[in-house]
Formats: sequence, C-alpha cells, structure tokens
Amino acid sequence: MSGTVTAVAPSNLAFVKYWGARDLERAIPRHPSVSMALSRCRSRCTVAPRPDDGDEVLLAREGGELEVAPEDFAEPVLRHVERLRRRAGGGASLRVATRNNFPTGAGLASSASGFAALTMACARVFGLQPSPEELSVLARSSGSGSAARSTLGGYVQWPESDDDLEGAAARLAPAEHWDLRDVVALVDPGRKEVSSREGHRRAESSPHFRRRLQLVPERLAEVRGAIRERDLRRLGPVLETEAVELHLVAMSSRPPVFYWSPGTLRVMEAVRSLRTEEGIGAYYTIDAGPNVHVICRPQDEERVVERMRALRPVRSVLRDRVGAGPRYDGEHLL
Amino acid sequence: MSGTVTAVAPSNLAFVKYWGARDLERAIPRHPSVSMALSRCRSRCTVAPRPDDGDEVLLAREGGELEVAPEDFAEPVLRHVERLRRRAGGGASLRVATRNNFPTGAGLASSASGFAALTMACARVFGLQPSPEELSVLARSSGSGSAARSTLGGYVQWPESDDDLEGAAARLAPAEHWDLRDVVALVDPGRKEVSSREGHRRAESSPHFRRRLQLVPERLAEVRGAIRERDLRRLGPVLETEAVELHLVAMSSRPPVFYWSPGTLRVMEAVRSLRTEEGIGAYYTIDAGPNVHVICRPQDEERVVERMRALRPVRSVLRDRVGAGPRYDGEHLL
Repeated sequence: MSGTVTAVAPSNLAFVKYWGARDLERAIPRHPSVSMALSRCRSRCTVAPRPDDGDEVLLAREGGELEVAPEDFAEPVLRHVERLRRRAGGGASLRVATRNNFPTGAGLASSASGFAALTMACARVFGLQPSPEELSVLARSSGSGSAARSTLGGYVQWPESDDDLEGAAARLAPAEHWDLRDVVALVDPGRKEVSSREGHRRAESSPHFRRRLQLVPERLAEVRGAIRERDLRRLGPVLETEAVELHLVAMSSRPPVFYWSPGTLRVMEAVRSLRTEEGIGAYYTIDAGPNVHVICRPQDEERVVERMRALRPVRSVLRDRVGAGPRYDGEHLL
Repeated sequence: MSGTVTAVAPSNLAFVKYWGARDLERAIPRHPSVSMALSRCRSRCTVAPRPDDGDEVLLAREGGELEVAPEDFAEPVLRHVERLRRRAGGGASLRVATRNNFPTGAGLASSASGFAALTMACARVFGLQPSPEELSVLARSSGSGSAARSTLGGYVQWPESDDDLEGAAARLAPAEHWDLRDVVALVDPGRKEVSSREGHRRAESSPHFRRRLQLVPERLAEVRGAIRERDLRRLGPVLETEAVELHLVAMSSRPPVFYWSPGTLRVMEAVRSLRTEEGIGAYYTIDAGPNVHVICRPQDEERVVERMRALRPVRSVLRDRVGAGPRYDGEHLL
C-alpha cells in the first residue's frame, strides 16, 4: 500500500545499566548508560495509513501471523503514535504491525527495539525528518529509555553527556570497531511478578541506590576506555559488577524485587568457571529478568555456547553479536 | 577420668548479621548483632587433662567415633586452648574432643557452638571461673565472633552496646519469652570457594559496606522491639533485609563472593509464596552459605516443613527452635 513504511531496529544490551529514573514517565535517567546494539534480536515495525478508521495495533505471533495486539501491548504503542502525530502537527490514522524475531515472553527486552522501530516508522510516515539526535530523543519519549539507545548501531552511550540527561544517545564506536559476541542463555524463568517499569520506580527506595549513583561515573569511563582499546579483560569485570548491582538495588528496594531464578545463578557460576578453569574470556551481564548474556570474543563463542547448552536450567541458547543498527526496508508486514 | 569437663553450647542464628570486622583477628565487630540461640544444633566438647603429653584434638565423625581432627580444624582449637591456659597462668595439657549434632559439612556454622563449648570446658578445667560477661569475651577471643553469642541462651545481642565493641554479649530475652521455630532447608551447595573468614575480610572492600553500617542501628532497634513485643510481622521483614544485605555486600566485594546456590533462590521464592498465597508468617534468613533458615511460629512449622520438603533442591530439612543456652553435663566424650 502506498505510504507504507517499515523500520527495523535492534535490541541492545546495556554494559552500564539504566536503573532508576529522574522522571520515569519521560524516561529521564539519573546518569548515562552504555550499550551494544545487537544484530539478530530486533523488531520490525510497519505502519500504514488507515484514513477511514482509528489507529490499530497488530502483533505477529511466533508463527508470523498478525493478530490484534493485547491491550497491555497496544496501549503504550497507541499513546506513542498519538504523541508523534501531534509532534508532526497532525496526520493520518495508522495501522501498526510489529514483529520481534526473538522469542517473545523469553524475558528479553523488546521495548527498546520495538519503540525505536515504531518511532522511525512513524517519523517517516508523518514526515517528521528528525536528525539522528532528535530521533533518539523521540524514541525515548515513548517512556522506554533504552529505546533511545536502539536508534543507533555499534556501541552507544545515552545520553551523550551527564550535563544533559534529557539529551540524545551518541555512538561511541561502530560495530566494525570490535566484534563482540553475545551468547544468551535463556533459563527457566522464576515468576516475573514485577515489571521493569515498576522495578525502575522502586529503585529509588533502595538504601543502596544513592551509593550506586556515586559509583557509575567511574564505570562509564572504564567501559568507554575498554571499548576504545577493545580490551575485554577490562570491560568484563565492569559488566559483571553492573549486572550484579542492578539486582542488588532491586533486591534491596522496598518492597524488594527479585528477578534472578535458580538457573541464573547456575549460569553465572558456569561463566566464572569458564574463566578460572579454562581461561576463556567470558563475562556475564543480566537485565531485569532471569536470562544471562555472556559476552565473549568470536573465537570463544563456540565453547561458550557448548557450555551453556550443557546446563540443565538453560532452555535454549541464542547467538547474537554487535550489530550495525536500525534501517528502513521494503519487507512490509502489511 | 578425674578432671574431665564437658560443656554443650548451642549454635545461634543471627537476625542482624555480623559481617565485616574492625579487627578480624580478635573478632571485634563494626556494630552489634542480634541472634537466637538454637536448641538442637549444638556442639559438645569434652576436655581431659593429659599430663604426660601435648594437647590433642579429636573430632567425632557422623557415626560418633572419635578421630584425630584434621589440621585445619585442630589448629585454631589448639591456639584457643593455649590462649586460655595462658590466661589461667598455666595448666595441664589437654585432650579435647568435639561432637556437633548437626551434619558437618552442611554449611551450618559450627564455629560459634564449637568455640563456645570449648571456652566453657577449658575455663572450668583451668579454674578460670569467668563471669558470664567474661565468658562471652573469652569465647570471642577465639576469633569466632558469633561464639560470643553462643555463651547465652534465648535472644542475644553482641556486644551489648555499640559504645564498647569489645564488650560481651547480653541476653535480650530468655527462650521462654517467645517460642520461635527455625526450619532449616539444606540445599544442594554450590561450591563454597570462599571461607566466611575471607568473606568477612573482603566485606570492607564492597562499595556498599559503609552504607550498610549506617543502616544497621535502625534494624537493631527494630529487631529488639519485635522481640520485646513478640511481633513476627515486624521481625520478619528485617530478617529478610539483613539476609539479602549480607549477600549484597558479599557479591559486591572485591573480588566478589557468591554463597547462594540455585536452590537458595528456590527456597526464598517458596517462603515468599507461603506468605502471599497461604498467609503463613514465614520469613527467611541466610548466613554465609547456601542454606536457608525459615523462621515461623509453632503452629505453622508443620506446613513450612512440608513445603520445604517438596522442593527439589532441598536435600534435607532440620527442625530447630529457640534454645535455653549452654550448660555443663556429665556425658563425656572421653
């Protein structure tokens, strides 16, 4: 259909985490975060004008068929479409279709890639023509802070400076700079009773949150230095410290938030033993869920995958790597 | 044999934890801790003069037979015997025999009960006649801080005041004051690669340790108030906060220390669901290891035991309760 636009945006994996916000509604963080754009975990979003009706949100099931999205998925999408239309000074009603090419419900963040792709598609269909910086800020305005990082490829910091926490993401290095692999160990989930959003909100109630804010600047500098020098031995310990600290803040929030499942600990232990017993440079990081991302060099990927597959609580293993970032293409869902 | 003395001392379970020390060698803590003496988990220690030879340390195996203790067990025992003999101005060489009536190697702290019983037995055989306060301080001088709490029964704070961190433990309430039960879920251990002693030492390197020190006074007050009022709903949340915070400090120490195993998380989750789904007042606490102590009222003990037994990673369940404290008796091991 004429006027149809499709954007594809990657998920991203935070090395220095975004947890707790100055303004949660607008996703204004307390400090910058740094991430790596992924290559295979991504969202595809097609928008098509629908002149005679209201907005509609469709979601692809695992088989690929589109169906009307459940309300908890559709509602923030509809609000973001409306926000972008207002920003453009008006525009047609839209049919919006989204497909994630990674298992939904696996606890992998899909809001970052989903809102980045939605923002790009809507921006074009509404004729907004944002600069890259404006695009990042528009994506963030969805309420998903990490979406601000998914509008860029390679290694990304958001916001660029801690002098302007409402600012855009900036690329630290392109994907070609450093070929890092991400072996994702999907584990038997515990009950995820608390959404990431609620976890963010509670973060401020942790007695350890303020201390974390003091610790982050040094980690940001360390991570940027490690990326610049392509030094995994320098990056790795910061990854693991950040991974654990997010959960320490969560578990000490009031009421406490527990995202780790028993399998999470098993994987962490296996990663440490890959290092100590086999000398393999593999390091874990963990988002607000039970799954573990294991970062390593290309030559170690096979061994890491093998080790993860051998662990009983690991249901499946995804292989991903640093990716080039979002794009528009012609493979429409509608 | 004439001159033979036997003392029995309980293990104890800390509600507010001792973690990190001002002086680790002498076990001078940074703040008071509060514990409950246990009833069934205890150590029996018999000492007998051995005039024609040097000191010797025997340890009972699970079957009960005594054998010469391995060096890592014997060495601190021998040093403590020598310390107490010097304090008494001299005395005979001793044969020392110890038996723990809870599974050794199960990761349950045996140094508290063991050193308390040893201190009592040696004090008597060397004619020291310490006051209760002196006894607590002598037990602590072994290097096991929690031994200072095991010289008393019921609910105990050590040291009594944070104005004198070298001071003795004091009883907050006798066992009869409040019949609390401790259901111990022994889980498949991960590798305990780091001793509690080394964990204590590393605690100071955690960026969250200083903050913890600021948080403890309020928790001490809360726990004392809850014990006074026999209010489990008030005690429980502090227990769980303290349990998690010890591990939070451990996991953020440098290098990090991980004591939880996958089963630990499974038990924690089950305890929370006993509360939320069945309305049972059960709360966990965890020492420097993977096992979980579930505190509850007598009328809920059966249901807690049943639930723990149904969990796959739980190898066995011990039932314990608040206990009356140490004593001398005539059932000698030698």
